[in-house]
Amino acid sequence: MKLSALGEDGVVEAITRALPLGTDVRRGAGDDCAVIGGPRDRRWQLLKTDCVVEGVHFLPGEKSARVGWKALCRAISDIGAMGGVPRHAMITIALHPEVEMKWLRGLYAGIRRAARRFGVSIVGGETSRSPGPAFISIALTGEVERTRCVTRAGGKAGDLLYVTGRLGGSQSGKHLDFVPRIREARWLVERFRVRAMMDLSDGLAADLPRLARASKCGFHISEESIPRNRGCTAAQALGDGEDFELLLAIHPRDSSRLDAAWRKAFPRLPLTRIGALTREADTPVRGSQPQRTGVSVSQRGFDHFA
Amino acid sequence: MKLSALGEDGVVEAITRALPLGTDVRRGAGDDCAVIGGPRDRRWQLLKTDCVVEGVHFLPGEKSARVGWKALCRAISDIGAMGGVPRHAMITIALHPEVEMKWLRGLYAGIRRAARRFGVSIVGGETSRSPGPAFISIALTGEVERTRCVTRAGGKAGDLLYVTGRLGGSQSGKHLDFVPRIREARWLVERFRVRAMMDLSDGLAADLPRLARASKCGFHISEESIPRNRGCTAAQALGDGEDFELLLAIHPRDSSRLDAAWRKAFPRLPLTRIGALTREADTPVRGSQPQRTGVSVSQRGFDHFA
Repeated sequence: MKLSALGEDGVVEAITRALPLGTDVRRGAGDDCAVIGGPRDRRWQLLKTDCVVEGVHFLPGEKSARVGWKALCRAISDIGAMGGVPRHAMITIALHPEVEMKWLRGLYAGIRRAARRFGVSIVGGETSRSPGPAFISIALTGEVERTRCVTRAGGKAGDLLYVTGRLGGSQSGKHLDFVPRIREARWLVERFRVRAMMDLSDGLAADLPRLARASKCGFHISEESIPRNRGCTAAQALGDGEDFELLLAIHPRDSSRLDAAWRKAFPRLPLTRIGALTREADTPVRGSQPQRTGVSVSQRGFDHFA
Repeated sequence: MKLSALGEDGVVEAITRALPLGTDVRRGAGDDCAVIGGPRDRRWQLLKTDCVVEGVHFLPGEKSARVGWKALCRAISDIGAMGGVPRHAMITIALHPEVEMKWLRGLYAGIRRAARRFGVSIVGGETSRSPGPAFISIALTGEVERTRCVTRAGGKAGDLLYVTGRLGGSQSGKHLDFVPRIREARWLVERFRVRAMMDLSDGLAADLPRLARASKCGFHISEESIPRNRGCTAAQALGDGEDFELLLAIHPRDSSRLDAAWRKAFPRLPLTRIGALTREADTPVRGSQPQRTGVSVSQRGFDHFA
């Protein structure tokens, strides 16, 4: 069977079965980051790897400083989605030997700019030849206080679902210039009972079912409530992907306090309640996926192998 | 200027200038691994990233389990070269959607086999689409006692240079099946004053000058003493690359004790003295590279961009 027939989630599920795991692994494959540490350690380490590929995540003619910014910020966004702070990055790059040094310098300028802004040390990496397209892979460590670490799996039925910012339309260029929601995520986990969180990389329609599945919940969202970027249809807001906004599930009793405090702290960034987690049994399940009320099944977000 | 004109070391030098580094970075880009930790911490963390690219590090028809083994073992070898123990790996893979699931399963079988053998937890990763060649990037953490951490930079004039195993001929298949010298490296750093160490990935002729340069030394080696694999010329032993043997500089007073103890501990693996580090000023310098007595300048090892 080809990868394209299995789809991204199927591929990931097949290869992450029966992986060797030590006892210090709190959370392995399947969340935004891996979480490493002892059950009583004050801080846990977060590990993330992420790649951008020419012709998939950026076009061949793209300005390399923007590509570098995006490459590092994608990984930073995942560290933020666990409630953590990014620390050390390693950069792996495979490039065709005919690439101009200027392009590579620009790429590193973008990476360095993101590193400085978010306090990341660039501690090494690897450069290799590529027979064709450019590959940039980022490995990033982070850390988070044990009591503030948020996974995808902690949501409970009744928790309210929120997203930051506005969704859709990433292809217009936003996917290269986005600002990872590190500050917002830290603010949230320091003040509220955030029970599950993730960053939206493949689109709400693909990512929300992943959060719900990890939390063993169903969900209900109202399509009209989804905050859209200017000129975007609901389908685009659900399926474009690369929003890099936060999706979070909050204890329902924290909700009104959150709404007021958020507006004060981040007056220019909307935080929108879009629905709630439900008991899985509340809704009939299609395949292995809880039903998404109000979201048609054809709006599935970005699938790498489909 | 194109990358091919600058060569691998030139490219790396250009992009690793002025990288943002925190105060906890003991060693950044330029060694086998990055080293993270406080100056008095008992243990330091090692970080490594490494990639294999289809058409560069393996041929398109290659058995994927061997590719997986190689991909993880390359990074494990670098952790060993610092005296450390590997801990947590993340696997980033970009594949064409038409690749068969069977190939990917085989790749993971090889990765898992290496992980089990060397006690590595596979804690996550990323799968992406590639428009063409397969790209596998491994991010690996490790740890090492502060007092046992060995970099490339600690060598002193007069230290004796050794290599493990035999060099050359990796293309005959050895580059896919090699066993990283973790056990041997740990044995060495636990018992001897290993002052500088690295693993041989680009060939002795490319790697030894890197170790000498990092240690601010020159070097002298005798070409006849270099242990060669069967059927290899001296040029092949120097330049083929992908030996994944250890190159180390030992305090001269540890030498005779080392020779005897090694033969007892590893009777089937040779450890060969090939020369010594010298004062940089002893030998005239060509370009930025100390002269390599007994090694002709044309034997330069593998350069990714040349």
